[in-house]
Amino acid sequence: MAHLACQLPQNKVRVSFRLADIVHALGGSLVGGEDFQVSRISSLSQASPSDITFLSSAQYAKELQSTKAGVVILSPAHRALARPDQTLIVTDQPYLYYARLTQWWQSQLNAQLNESEPRVHPTAFIHPSAKVDPSARIGPFCVVEREATIGAHSWLKSRVSVGERCVISERVILHSGVVIGADGFGFAKDPQGWVKIEQLGAVRIAQDVEIGANSCVDRGALEDTVIEQGVKLDNLVQIAHNVHIGEHTAMAACVGVAGSAKIGKHCTVGGAAVVLGHLSVADHVHISAASVVTKSISKPGHYTGFFPIDENANWEKNAVTLKQLHRMRERVRALEQALQK
Amino acid sequence: MAHLACQLPQNKVRVSFRLADIVHALGGSLVGGEDFQVSRISSLSQASPSDITFLSSAQYAKELQSTKAGVVILSPAHRALARPDQTLIVTDQPYLYYARLTQWWQSQLNAQLNESEPRVHPTAFIHPSAKVDPSARIGPFCVVEREATIGAHSWLKSRVSVGERCVISERVILHSGVVIGADGFGFAKDPQGWVKIEQLGAVRIAQDVEIGANSCVDRGALEDTVIEQGVKLDNLVQIAHNVHIGEHTAMAACVGVAGSAKIGKHCTVGGAAVVLGHLSVADHVHISAASVVTKSISKPGHYTGFFPIDENANWEKNAVTLKQLHRMRERVRALEQALQK
Amino acid sequence: MAHLACQLPQNKVRVSFRLADIVHALGGSLVGGEDFQVSRISSLSQASPSDITFLSSAQYAKELQSTKAGVVILSPAHRALARPDQTLIVTDQPYLYYARLTQWWQSQLNAQLNESEPRVHPTAFIHPSAKVDPSARIGPFCVVEREATIGAHSWLKSRVSVGERCVISERVILHSGVVIGADGFGFAKDPQGWVKIEQLGAVRIAQDVEIGANSCVDRGALEDTVIEQGVKLDNLVQIAHNVHIGEHTAMAACVGVAGSAKIGKHCTVGGAAVVLGHLSVADHVHISAASVVTKSISKPGHYTGFFPIDENANWEKNAVTLKQLHRMRERVRALEQALQK
Repeated sequence: MAHLACQLPQNKVRVSFRLADIVHALGGSLVGGEDFQVSRISSLSQASPSDITFLSSAQYAKELQSTKAGVVILSPAHRALARPDQTLIVTDQPYLYYARLTQWWQSQLNAQLNESEPRVHPTAFIHPSAKVDPSARIGPFCVVEREATIGAHSWLKSRVSVGERCVISERVILHSGVVIGADGFGFAKDPQGWVKIEQLGAVRIAQDVEIGANSCVDRGALEDTVIEQGVKLDNLVQIAHNVHIGEHTAMAACVGVAGSAKIGKHCTVGGAAVVLGHLSVADHVHISAASVVTKSISKPGHYTGFFPIDENANWEKNAVTLKQLHRMRERVRALEQALQK
Repeated sequence: MAHLACQLPQNKVRVSFRLADIVHALGGSLVGGEDFQVSRISSLSQASPSDITFLSSAQYAKELQSTKAGVVILSPAHRALARPDQTLIVTDQPYLYYARLTQWWQSQLNAQLNESEPRVHPTAFIHPSAKVDPSARIGPFCVVEREATIGAHSWLKSRVSVGERCVISERVILHSGVVIGADGFGFAKDPQGWVKIEQLGAVRIAQDVEIGANSCVDRGALEDTVIEQGVKLDNLVQIAHNVHIGEHTAMAACVGVAGSAKIGKHCTVGGAAVVLGHLSVADHVHISAASVVTKSISKPGHYTGFFPIDENANWEKNAVTLKQLHRMRERVRALEQALQK
Repeated sequence: MAHLACQLPQNKVRVSFRLADIVHALGGSLVGGEDFQVSRISSLSQASPSDITFLSSAQYAKELQSTKAGVVILSPAHRALARPDQTLIVTDQPYLYYARLTQWWQSQLNAQLNESEPRVHPTAFIHPSAKVDPSARIGPFCVVEREATIGAHSWLKSRVSVGERCVISERVILHSGVVIGADGFGFAKDPQGWVKIEQLGAVRIAQDVEIGANSCVDRGALEDTVIEQGVKLDNLVQIAHNVHIGEHTAMAACVGVAGSAKIGKHCTVGGAAVVLGHLSVADHVHISAASVVTKSISKPGHYTGFFPIDENANWEKNAVTLKQLHRMRERVRALEQALQK
């Protein structure tokens, strides 16, 4: 009776679009049948005959030869790699075309499905003093607190909290469980314990930011926490109080950025990396997954720091030695001096 | 006036069950009074005279001697270690017996308490097009989006979101705050910034999966994200788009699995470990806590990679040396060559 | 049309308080105009003429000279560093004074704003058998399950879940998305897969604890999970079943503490650090960010363990060498022995 998830029914959306309509909307040169009905976007290897797919790099040329896809999006440079009878959309940036195609596809589906859905779900709680643009979408059980602002075309999925006085700009997407504007972690030490420093700032999030499920952006202590336009944060990301994240920086899941850190523009931060507090990271810096930024980084580049994984028995031997590494360096120095004599 | 949490009242459930009823339901050989009333399951060291406990390994034999427990579950091999007057349940796998006893215990409590509770909490939001099995339990403020499916005997605790078209099979437990089917983190790069790739896949979760509080499983980009039967995920775990997790694999809290990774069956992943994207991990692989899987692992075994903790002053010296490690290896090589001459 | 978040309107609260009222409430010696109207708390460098700020350490003496702040809080020792015409509050512990000022400030605002807000939000779900003190505040979409207890003056922000039989003491703050009392991660192994061990304990949280957004504290397996008074946990922290955290310990964001670990009093744990299960950590232990505690720590002190970040190319060379470190030690030993001969 047990069944595998891969055998569970896929709740596929049944749709199809005319190929000429896609090209009309998104551009590119169509090679082949404009009346072709596309029923799904797929990968080269998984595509069925009614699917559209894309070739983003020559390294998949082999899959291009064997794909069953009805239509392939590719660049002029790769056109010769396709089978002669293959229906094609030829465009300079196939991966970007694919991204835009997913957006067009989704908007077509939404137009069919969402017309009757209310923009503000009846279960959401919006404080009377909050300002929500009429074009914003607010999902079930969202909370928009006192004097918060939600800009045009922004979308709070289910169960999002936006704290008081926080400002969400236009076209921002906040996924389920996101918390914007919880108190920053601020306490003063006292012999009796920790004394709370009330967090009097707020959070400001600029246009076209997207924040993943269950991520948190804390309000500032005195000034605001600021996320600039086009920033993309994955799930379970922690942004502490008074952090500033520059435009178009992207952070993968489980990243933590500590208080008052200032991250530049166009940076990328790999999953589960950590940036300590009060540091500055320059524009165009790329941090590998699971790395810990402990000093400010002023030079663009690629930075890494994690222990390489190994078979446990090897790791144990190396880890034990590592705890003596400084001593070993001294032994090497002693050997060098002995040899010099 | 201050009090410690350990002095706060324990909201203990007052119940008692007849020992013979337990043995009747779960098996094992009863040695001693079948009319004994068991009021709590406890550990050997904490047990009171009306409690039942278990001996899972001979290493706790000393605690067995001194326990105040009314009843001890143990294996035939350990029977001689018990006091002669001790009431016993003798069974081949005492730890498994204990697990089943907790289930039986809980089900007895639920039978007493939950009869009047509605299966679908009146505050939950279920889209009219979603399919929820009549035996499923849906807690307060849960969200089941359009065309999602919730299978028989599955249980969504409070504040769980299941996104559109996601499929939850039978006997799945999703703890509070879980988000199934948020968008995967997919963007194409463009001179103007990141262009969203709409995530058109869904999530499929097979039978007997349990997912901990505030964990996230993202929907796939084109194909679905898949979690096979019997998988157990702890709290605050991140499963990215198009990941595939094989049967009966267990992951501790704070683990992150990046996009399109394929994890085998019967694996275990320790807390806060990270698996990078597009990797394959074989069946029966065990990853230690806080380790970063950066390459596919094709061989079953135990793998580890994290920096050993030390007193900060030692760590600092070793960390500084570590940044010169490659240079040190060259010095050792130079010494070896000098000595060979 | 695009705008930066730093240009978005700040939803500043317009208020002002008379300086003499502040000193009357909080103490300290006022040097200068008691009728001065303070409109904001700010930092030395960001302050406007109507702002109050503080000097916590002589290292900011330069900023003190150039600050535009109307009022500066400082210690007697630093008084001579201020400009002669500067209005001052002189007090022994300026940072603590600042913390208390933020609390006083917030309470003044709340007195103005919250009078009409209900203490229990109408959208919250509280089980009829739960005990909620009349002075507690329960925010939108909170869930308080069967027989749970919420103490006096505690505050559950939006979307907090407190599971059955869990006990929250007085003056506890639980931020949005917190989950108290989800099941601990407990399973017994069986040839057919994992067998759930029902988690029959609860969670007890003592006075003055604060827990950050989307953090989780799991219920105990048999005994309770316990968090002692004055503990402060940041966002996205995971506390597993049967953990015990001593008084006034603070943990930064993304920390994970595995099952049955016992953490002492007055400890600090840096962001994203991990404490493995069944360990004991003494009082007054300080763990650096991103470090993994793998053995019990019995001595107060500062402990660290993470790989130092570096330019990726250097890291790669050092990481490769690290996997041969044990072998390198043997080579060094061989060299030493060869030289001794």
